[in-house]
Amino acid sequence: MSTHILEEIFHPQSIAVVGASPSGRGGGFVSPLLDYGFKGKLYPVNPKYSEILGLKAYPNLREIPGSVDYVISAVSASRVLSMLEDCSQKGVKAVHLFTGRFSETGRPEPAKLEQEILEKARKSGIRLIGPNCMGVYYPKEGISFVTDLPKEPGPIGFASQTGGGSVYLIHIASLRGVRFSKVISYGNAIDLNESDYLDYFSQDPETKIILMYIEGVKDGKRFFNALRRATATKPVIIVKGGRGESGTRATASHTASLAGSTKIWETMVTQAGAVSAENFEEMADLAVSFHFLPLIEGLRVGILGAGGGTSVLSADQCEEAGLDVIPVPAEIREELKSKGILTWDWVGNPIDVSIMGDSGLTGPDMLQMMAENQNFDFLIGTLNEDAPATKEALKLRHREEIKGFIEGKQRTSKAFLVVVGEKSPGIKDHNDWRWRALSEARAKLLAAGIPVYPTIGRAARAARKLAEYYQRRK
Amino acid sequence: MSTHILEEIFHPQSIAVVGASPSGRGGGFVSPLLDYGFKGKLYPVNPKYSEILGLKAYPNLREIPGSVDYVISAVSASRVLSMLEDCSQKGVKAVHLFTGRFSETGRPEPAKLEQEILEKARKSGIRLIGPNCMGVYYPKEGISFVTDLPKEPGPIGFASQTGGGSVYLIHIASLRGVRFSKVISYGNAIDLNESDYLDYFSQDPETKIILMYIEGVKDGKRFFNALRRATATKPVIIVKGGRGESGTRATASHTASLAGSTKIWETMVTQAGAVSAENFEEMADLAVSFHFLPLIEGLRVGILGAGGGTSVLSADQCEEAGLDVIPVPAEIREELKSKGILTWDWVGNPIDVSIMGDSGLTGPDMLQMMAENQNFDFLIGTLNEDAPATKEALKLRHREEIKGFIEGKQRTSKAFLVVVGEKSPGIKDHNDWRWRALSEARAKLLAAGIPVYPTIGRAARAARKLAEYYQRRK
Repeated sequence: MSTHILEEIFHPQSIAVVGASPSGRGGGFVSPLLDYGFKGKLYPVNPKYSEILGLKAYPNLREIPGSVDYVISAVSASRVLSMLEDCSQKGVKAVHLFTGRFSETGRPEPAKLEQEILEKARKSGIRLIGPNCMGVYYPKEGISFVTDLPKEPGPIGFASQTGGGSVYLIHIASLRGVRFSKVISYGNAIDLNESDYLDYFSQDPETKIILMYIEGVKDGKRFFNALRRATATKPVIIVKGGRGESGTRATASHTASLAGSTKIWETMVTQAGAVSAENFEEMADLAVSFHFLPLIEGLRVGILGAGGGTSVLSADQCEEAGLDVIPVPAEIREELKSKGILTWDWVGNPIDVSIMGDSGLTGPDMLQMMAENQNFDFLIGTLNEDAPATKEALKLRHREEIKGFIEGKQRTSKAFLVVVGEKSPGIKDHNDWRWRALSEARAKLLAAGIPVYPTIGRAARAARKLAEYYQRRK
Repeated sequence: MSTHILEEIFHPQSIAVVGASPSGRGGGFVSPLLDYGFKGKLYPVNPKYSEILGLKAYPNLREIPGSVDYVISAVSASRVLSMLEDCSQKGVKAVHLFTGRFSETGRPEPAKLEQEILEKARKSGIRLIGPNCMGVYYPKEGISFVTDLPKEPGPIGFASQTGGGSVYLIHIASLRGVRFSKVISYGNAIDLNESDYLDYFSQDPETKIILMYIEGVKDGKRFFNALRRATATKPVIIVKGGRGESGTRATASHTASLAGSTKIWETMVTQAGAVSAENFEEMADLAVSFHFLPLIEGLRVGILGAGGGTSVLSADQCEEAGLDVIPVPAEIREELKSKGILTWDWVGNPIDVSIMGDSGLTGPDMLQMMAENQNFDFLIGTLNEDAPATKEALKLRHREEIKGFIEGKQRTSKAFLVVVGEKSPGIKDHNDWRWRALSEARAKLLAAGIPVYPTIGRAARAARKLAEYYQRRK
């Protein structure tokens, strides 16, 4: 088996940035490579500069003394064809066209130019990423297209038709404790397309979970087969952009993609064994869930629901998400009774911790009983962050609850999700002890390998999708 | 018209806290009254103490020298009847029973005791709030049941069958720029019930928007009539707890409420002209929307969608929320063309700001054109917070975008909503410039009267419910 072209793209010995500049977007490709410590040769190319960010700059590709494996193009659309000629002469293997304004403009001339570029690349044996995209983020190799993404690698691979959206996804997922193997923003996909990226991630040992943001598919049959191969070994989570009329218009002007029928798409994704997400928030929920959680064998959930009202709404929302919020099993009632717990016949699922106050049993104790009971497939805990109590009492309770959650997690093999509310403070509140306490809680839980969700509804929907995923695979 | 009993409850000349203690839950009712500066007489009652938090403590209600208008009961259930006898002798008008463990336990004895308490109160002419609830938060009068809620008053009234949930709602809504007239956590509602609270808020000049969290209704017909009267003058937003099987079980063990049929409930709420919310997050979205936004006359939305992928998903999610994401009107295309904007035929709705980069027009400029165009009923802007750019460029862009949003808001009479993503940082990231910048952005927008939403989906759903609300009222 020959090396996958993307394996070469992800491991270049040398990169040239054509259209580089000391600042702005052109510079935006040189500085991250320096910042992330790319170990290969790095050549800025721009006739206007002799030096860029401390590196010798070249007037054109041909003047570069050594060989060039990979080119990032930040030149304008009209200059791409001649640049490709230079690439051809230098033996460049692949070009990432950050350059945009082609078919996505909806105009015939740029669309024709895009086609000529593809033909030129094919004739020269050059593979193209893009055009109209941000390219590669591969922290392990020191490759990135912006400077503020995590530098540590992780097991999530992401192929995305949006650059800004992929930055957003990396941000929100990273804050929730996952890291990335490789992310590729691939734009209009005139040459390498979604099926190539999916095939690559399928066989990439660094990638355990595959994410995709897709606006349109070039070859439906090829993609379906690639998706089936991928899902045979790894979870694949897909956000489809362009589901409605206006979204379809928007995909055309974003990446010139034909969005296609949403119904056919949904059937195809499900049949192929992949998991659909509605937006990047849900994609992050699912990535975090697949990353942290063991197999979920069924839909029966045991819930620690904070106070009474939160418990009621947790039950409603879990049920509305398709989960089975079963009553407290008889064995647990008996055990509580035999322990002399006064609320033995009163406590329900979700557990209202506020009625356990004087029982000697904490929320985590109750979660532990559910974890040990065969009737529950998995568990959701809620940090009781808004109980009516003094600051000191709440701080103590938070600490004890988090400690209990972490100990409980270590004692059970069942999936355990925790809800810590997301709040939107203004800057005056930013350092208030209450919102800092939530950040501390999240950090402690994540460090113990417990995934954290901003609402019970999002935790419930993620759990249901995992349970269905594992049921389909049986 | 005689004074509404709740008007007296909200303006007591004297409060006694029976079962008070220097700390813990009993003390939890004395310290907020001190902290919020309640101006009437305050009498802690507990035979175990001669002084509590610097106040003289009384062994029982009868020993209090002056009259007592309002009693907060933190004694155990078994002691409530004798306490009511004392209340009767002291001429107390109303008692808030924080005391719980009655019918919500599901046991016959406590349910019987609850009934006896109600009969005793009726015979003595004493009105009851609760039992099993947190009572009153009325910052203007210096009344609160916890110490960390806002001290400034505002126009939102909230009657809630959950205490912890009401704290959560006050927190999340306050962070988003609204404040409260009066909040009442009313638990099992054996005497004063949802219809009394609703009637009160209907005629309360301090309350402009009414929120309710309801698990069960005591008298459906009375409530329907009260709701119709209320919605005739004020928006009423209701979260119903106990919608499914498990939620119904949970309402029984929380407030002994009979949740009833969800279908009948939904029909009733809609017919009465109220607005349903699924959870407290949506309730906060709606409260914020009614508070900050002018009338929304239709569903046609103009969207500033940050980058391309975000724009595509914004279109999809707005459409899925029932909004009409119309194409860019011909007049705007013509105006862009006449101004020599190269992307005049390319830009869509949502506006992908990344393609406007070199046009000289900013996102806010484009929003302004949509604001002035008759085809749009309202506008949603998205802070372009995850654009692939350097820290310095992003900071500058944030500043300019926020300034543009604020100027744009001042120039239009159309409703304008802004999305600033909610992130869940761990404590290491808590002070990262990026998340601080989002808090700063929220604060600036709120200060200018622009409501902020954590996702486009939530902004879209809130806007649709407002548009439908105003359409129904026509």
